[in-house]
Amino acid sequence: MEYKFSQRVKNLKPSAIREIFKYASDPEVISLSAGNPSPEAFPCKEIEEISKKIFEENPISVLQYSVTEGYTPLREHLKKYLKESQNIGSQNDDILITSGAQQIMDLCSKSLLNEGEVVICESPSFIGSLNTFRSYNGKLAGVPVESDGMNMQALEKVLQENKNTKFIYTIPNYQNPSGVTMSLEKRKKMYELAKKYGVLIIEDNPYGELRYSGEAIPAIKSFDTDNIVIYAGSFSKVVAPGIRVAYTVAPKEIFSKFVVCKQGSDVHSNIWAQVVCYEYMTKYNFEQHLEELRKIYSIKANFCMDLLDKYAPKIKYHKIDGGLFIWCELPKSVDMPEFCKTAVLNKVCVVPGNAFLTDENEKCQSFRINFSTPTDEQLEKGIKILGKLADKIIK
Amino acid sequence: MEYKFSQRVKNLKPSAIREIFKYASDPEVISLSAGNPSPEAFPCKEIEEISKKIFEENPISVLQYSVTEGYTPLREHLKKYLKESQNIGSQNDDILITSGAQQIMDLCSKSLLNEGEVVICESPSFIGSLNTFRSYNGKLAGVPVESDGMNMQALEKVLQENKNTKFIYTIPNYQNPSGVTMSLEKRKKMYELAKKYGVLIIEDNPYGELRYSGEAIPAIKSFDTDNIVIYAGSFSKVVAPGIRVAYTVAPKEIFSKFVVCKQGSDVHSNIWAQVVCYEYMTKYNFEQHLEELRKIYSIKANFCMDLLDKYAPKIKYHKIDGGLFIWCELPKSVDMPEFCKTAVLNKVCVVPGNAFLTDENEKCQSFRINFSTPTDEQLEKGIKILGKLADKIIK
Repeated sequence: MEYKFSQRVKNLKPSAIREIFKYASDPEVISLSAGNPSPEAFPCKEIEEISKKIFEENPISVLQYSVTEGYTPLREHLKKYLKESQNIGSQNDDILITSGAQQIMDLCSKSLLNEGEVVICESPSFIGSLNTFRSYNGKLAGVPVESDGMNMQALEKVLQENKNTKFIYTIPNYQNPSGVTMSLEKRKKMYELAKKYGVLIIEDNPYGELRYSGEAIPAIKSFDTDNIVIYAGSFSKVVAPGIRVAYTVAPKEIFSKFVVCKQGSDVHSNIWAQVVCYEYMTKYNFEQHLEELRKIYSIKANFCMDLLDKYAPKIKYHKIDGGLFIWCELPKSVDMPEFCKTAVLNKVCVVPGNAFLTDENEKCQSFRINFSTPTDEQLEKGIKILGKLADKIIK
Repeated sequence: MEYKFSQRVKNLKPSAIREIFKYASDPEVISLSAGNPSPEAFPCKEIEEISKKIFEENPISVLQYSVTEGYTPLREHLKKYLKESQNIGSQNDDILITSGAQQIMDLCSKSLLNEGEVVICESPSFIGSLNTFRSYNGKLAGVPVESDGMNMQALEKVLQENKNTKFIYTIPNYQNPSGVTMSLEKRKKMYELAKKYGVLIIEDNPYGELRYSGEAIPAIKSFDTDNIVIYAGSFSKVVAPGIRVAYTVAPKEIFSKFVVCKQGSDVHSNIWAQVVCYEYMTKYNFEQHLEELRKIYSIKANFCMDLLDKYAPKIKYHKIDGGLFIWCELPKSVDMPEFCKTAVLNKVCVVPGNAFLTDENEKCQSFRINFSTPTDEQLEKGIKILGKLADKIIK
C-alpha cells in the first residue's frame, strides 16, 4: 500500500541536527553539537529523596490519571514564583503544565496557526520550534538577529508585508543558537509592534534563569497589559530535561483552548515528574540550586571562550551571558558545509548554522558550539582541532 | 485583543465527560463516570523498588534528554513480547513509545488526516479519540456496533460512500463504552474491507490483556500481511496511567513519520517512566501481575452485573468479558439526558451515551457505568439509586 500522508507533514523531514547526531554517537567523535544540560547540573540526590518519599507516602497520587491543566500545587506555586521573581502573569492569565516546552510550540501552532499563516522568527532560531511551526504548514518569516536582538526595522517590514502573521516567536535570553540577548528597548519595541499589528508574541525562555553575568532584563510578558504574550518556561535546563516538564503562562482564553488541545494530545503530563518539580521548588533551596547552575555554566562558558581565543583566533564568536551555546562565524570565503564535514572527519561535531535558518538552503557562515555536554578535556581537544582547521583554510 | 483561533480548533469544546466530572468531584456524589484503573491494581511496591534502584545506580539515565523513538530496551522487549504473546509485529513494522495512547491518535491524525477526510469509527466509541480526530477537522462516520462488533454491511456502505476515508478506528476488545468484543470473523472481514478500499486500520487495544472470561481473539494486527494496521497498546491499564506510557506498532514508513511528528510534539516521553515499564516487565512476573488484575476486575465486573440484575432489572446491559465499563440501556420512552441529570441530583454520576456518538446531538438510549474506580459500597449504593430511578420512570 502506498501511504498517503497529510499535506501538512508530507514533506516534513527529520531535523538536520538529528542527522548530525548520528556522527556524534560515534564514541571517537567529540560532540559539540548537542544541547544537553551538564550531567553535574542535575539534582540527582534530591530527586531520589523526593521520589522515595512520594512512593512511601502516596504512590497512587503519581500513578493514577490526573488533570490536563497540571498538578494544582505546582501551578499555584509557579504563579506566585513567576509573579514575585519576574512579574510574569496577571489576573487575565492562567498557567498550564506541559510535556516539555516543545509541547507549548505544538499547542500554539495547533490552536492558532492556519495553514499558510506566517510565524515571524529570529533567524537563526531554535530548530525544534521551527520544525513544529513547519509541521502545521505555517510559513516562516525570518528576521535577522543583531547583537541586541531582532532588527526592529526588518521586523516591522515583515509585519507590514505579511498581514496574515499569527505570532512572533522569540527567545529573548541567550538565544539558541546565536547566544544573543534582546535589549529592553527592543523588547518594548517588539511588544509595541505586536500590539500595532495585532499579532501575538510567544516568548520562549528556557535559559532565562541561567544568566551568569550582567543584569537580568525584564521578560516581555512582564509588561503584557494587553494580553498578547504567551510565555514559555521550562524545567529542562534547571531541573532535568528527561522528565519533560514545562509550563506556559497564557491569556485565559488561549489557556482554555490549550487545555482542550492538550487533552487530545496526551491527556496530561507525567504526574510523578510534576510532583518532583513542585517538591523540589518548595522543599529545597531552589534559588541556591540556580546559583550553583550559574556557577557551573559560567565556568564552562568562560573556559570555552578562552579556548576559542587561544586556539582558534580565526573563529569569531558572540560573547554570552548565559545559556549553553556559542555561535561561531567564519569568513565568507569559507564553505561552511564543507568545514563542518571536515570537522566530523577530524572527529569533532558541530552544527552548521543553516540548520537554524528559516530557509535551510540559505547560505550561512556560522556554526553552533555547545559547551555544557562535553568534558573540559573534550572541549579543549575539540576546539584545538577546529582552530587548526580554520587556520588551514583561512589564509 | 480578539484571539483568532485556527479553523481546526475554533469550534472544539472540552469533552462532555469533563463537564460531568465537575459533578463527580463533589465528594457526596458517587462517580460511576470515570475510567480510572482500580487503585488496588497498581504495582506500587515494585515501582517504588525500581525507582529506588534507578536513582541509586544511574540517575542521569532517567534525567537527561533521550531519543524520540523511546527507550531502546523497552522497544526491543515489547517487540519480542508482542510477537510471542499475540503474533503482533513483522519485519515491516517498527515500535514507537508514546506519551499515552492518546498521543498515538494524535500522531495518526496529524500525519495522515487532511481536513475533511473521513475517519470511520464504531458508534459509540471512545470520546478521547473522537475528539482528537475532530481536532484535526477529520469527518467522523459512525458505524453501529452489534454484540459482536461493527455491522459489516454498514461499514462497507460507509466505505463506498466516503471515498476520502483515511482510516477505520476500532477498539476490538471490550470496547469503550459498549463493552463489545469484535468476533474473529468480523476482524477478518474488517481487514478485507480495509484492503479492498485502500484504507488503514487503527487498532486500539488498551484493555486486551484484561480478559477475565472466554477465549482471547487474535488481534487484527496479527494477520496484517499487507502493512495496513497501526496497533496501539498501553501501560495505562496494566501498570499505571499517571506515568503516560503507551506504544504503537506501525508499518516502518508510518513509524518514521510518527517519529518526526513526535519530535515536534514533545521530543520524547518521560524516560523515567519508560525505564520503570521496562524493568517491571522484565525483572518481575508481569504475567502473574496480569492474572491478578484479571482477578480484581473479574470480581468487580461480576459484582456490578449482579447488582444490576438484582437492583436494576429495568436497566438492560451488555455482558462483558473484560475492560472497565458496562453499557446500559433504557427503553425508548425514557428521556436519557433527563435521566442522567436526575441521577446526578440523586448523587450518582454516569455518562450519557450520546457523549460517545460521532454526532453528540443524536439521540441515545444508553449510558456508561464504570466499575473499576468506585468502592464496592459506592457501587452498590449507586446502582440501587439508578435502579429505583429506572423503576420510577419506566411503567
